[in-house]
Amino acid sequence: MNAYCTIAIDAMGGDRGPSATVPAALTVIARHPDVRLELVGDLDALRQALQKYGGQEGQQLSLIAASEVVAMDESPSQALRYKKDSSMRVAIERVKSEEAAACVSAGNTGALMATARYVLKTLPGIDRPAICTIIPCLNGHFRMLDLGANIDCSAEHLFQFAVMGSVLVEASGDAETPRVGLLNLGEEEIKGNDQVKQAAQLLQASDLNYIGYVEGDTMYQNQADLVVCDGFIGNVALKSSEGVAKMISQYLREEFSRSPLTKLAGLLSLPVLKALRRRLDPRFYNGASLLGLRGVVVKSHGGADAFAFERAIETGILEAKEAIPQRIDQRLGELFRSGEGA
Amino acid sequence: MNAYCTIAIDAMGGDRGPSATVPAALTVIARHPDVRLELVGDLDALRQALQKYGGQEGQQLSLIAASEVVAMDESPSQALRYKKDSSMRVAIERVKSEEAAACVSAGNTGALMATARYVLKTLPGIDRPAICTIIPCLNGHFRMLDLGANIDCSAEHLFQFAVMGSVLVEASGDAETPRVGLLNLGEEEIKGNDQVKQAAQLLQASDLNYIGYVEGDTMYQNQADLVVCDGFIGNVALKSSEGVAKMISQYLREEFSRSPLTKLAGLLSLPVLKALRRRLDPRFYNGASLLGLRGVVVKSHGGADAFAFERAIETGILEAKEAIPQRIDQRLGELFRSGEGA
Repeated sequence: MNAYCTIAIDAMGGDRGPSATVPAALTVIARHPDVRLELVGDLDALRQALQKYGGQEGQQLSLIAASEVVAMDESPSQALRYKKDSSMRVAIERVKSEEAAACVSAGNTGALMATARYVLKTLPGIDRPAICTIIPCLNGHFRMLDLGANIDCSAEHLFQFAVMGSVLVEASGDAETPRVGLLNLGEEEIKGNDQVKQAAQLLQASDLNYIGYVEGDTMYQNQADLVVCDGFIGNVALKSSEGVAKMISQYLREEFSRSPLTKLAGLLSLPVLKALRRRLDPRFYNGASLLGLRGVVVKSHGGADAFAFERAIETGILEAKEAIPQRIDQRLGELFRSGEGA
Repeated sequence: MNAYCTIAIDAMGGDRGPSATVPAALTVIARHPDVRLELVGDLDALRQALQKYGGQEGQQLSLIAASEVVAMDESPSQALRYKKDSSMRVAIERVKSEEAAACVSAGNTGALMATARYVLKTLPGIDRPAICTIIPCLNGHFRMLDLGANIDCSAEHLFQFAVMGSVLVEASGDAETPRVGLLNLGEEEIKGNDQVKQAAQLLQASDLNYIGYVEGDTMYQNQADLVVCDGFIGNVALKSSEGVAKMISQYLREEFSRSPLTKLAGLLSLPVLKALRRRLDPRFYNGASLLGLRGVVVKSHGGADAFAFERAIETGILEAKEAIPQRIDQRLGELFRSGEGA
């Protein structure tokens, strides 16, 4: 038996493959003496990358062969049916066989979700896994789910998301009794659809710390630790936010490079701009959790560099150590299966 | 008969009432010799405001009495039932009786929509009016609808939104054949719900310039002139964007005021920050259109100052002069009622 916390890495996934995943893995094992990483993929490519980044196989690092790679634009069903020896699939199967406590992939979201669901299955009582990520907000951050795995969600689905997300926030140490908000329209409008209204009732009646509706703007004011919504809305909210942040940063660049004087101002403002960047750096928040599965699966942004991918591995380690799926299962059992002796 | 383009102003609406609406009206009539504004509200309050801002009644400016005001937090049904002499209602009725070609209000959205729908009715073939506004994006702007009037939309509703929005973009002179995008999830996910998929087919088969799906982030890259979505998603997208922009501007302020050095940098960067502000100033984009009604109704932001309210009046003038409801009606007739001899 080994006392290591073992994480399987889809080392070929993402836009950068081993040139991001391998250096990230090396940094992480140096930081965590109790963590063992399995790099899954093409052995030649991985050995080359190890050499390039000054690492080697050992107690904390092993290579596992996988002959295929799921392309970033490959359809989930295609990947599921024809890529049975993909680095993504093999990494997930390490979790299924309990040789690893988590897997991390920067591969395509749809394929990862479909494969993880097929191989690991969902927890009892969970109809649909959800994607949950951290989003920076005023003087802090919050988590949000779902972000695109589920388009049409019933009130029960939204409630399940709230339970799963609360467990994750608690386990992460961010809040003891996470403030849970339901994303909804402004107060002036007719408030939300039936699903949201019914989910509000379920949350109100539960022992979760439900704080009521939050809106797209107020959620950035550190109103809630967890924001719950269906995947379509969550995806649009997250991407709109990214779109605006990118536009503003491009405008800042343009305006600072307009004249010699503004260039000088820009030079003097470098510490300010760097501090701003640090506070909003999406790389720091990389690593979305696929919640509701019988195992930990973390999705890194496809374009992640080594630093960003490190963060995704850290998320996997946290969730593995905190046994998130088991805790969610237990919580669901308390909530739903109390009468059934389960 | 008068040759003026007459606009009825709910002069009491919004957080600031006459202290925003009256100076805005005075600026607008000075700019447009062919425009006549009717200030609707409490005559004493309006006369006081006119005196304060150096204006007077005349050919281009008249006062119309209304004894009540719809509160910003009043329920739409309440306002509709009990406030029959509100400044909002009277302004809308000026449009109904064709004494005014448009009305503009900073009052509460729900009440404005409900009252406008009740008094003016929707155009034939339009089930639900939609709220459309301008949003700044990289080197330009786009329009988006719906923004909260309609929660659950069928494919046909989304298609109607696209038709109405296209007419508005064309008439505004922003694009001859407006690029119409449907807001959807990322390419990686299972794409959208059934409504969106079916709306895509309707748009594909129409003579609109449909460019396909756009995402929350790419819409800020000047991809489309018109972005179509249901009101829940549109509301969340718009508010998330505002929330992020506010957070970034607060962070900039904080970082620039951190030390004497950063304060100096901030001072030198003032022209840059002002230019940035100008490019993103929401006041400049104030004035949302309630499309699909038998008359022009423009909703100003409740918190609008005089400058922002001016923009909303300008939107009303444009839509009145361009006869937007008639053009939408005509376009819908061409599309839907061609076989019926209408």
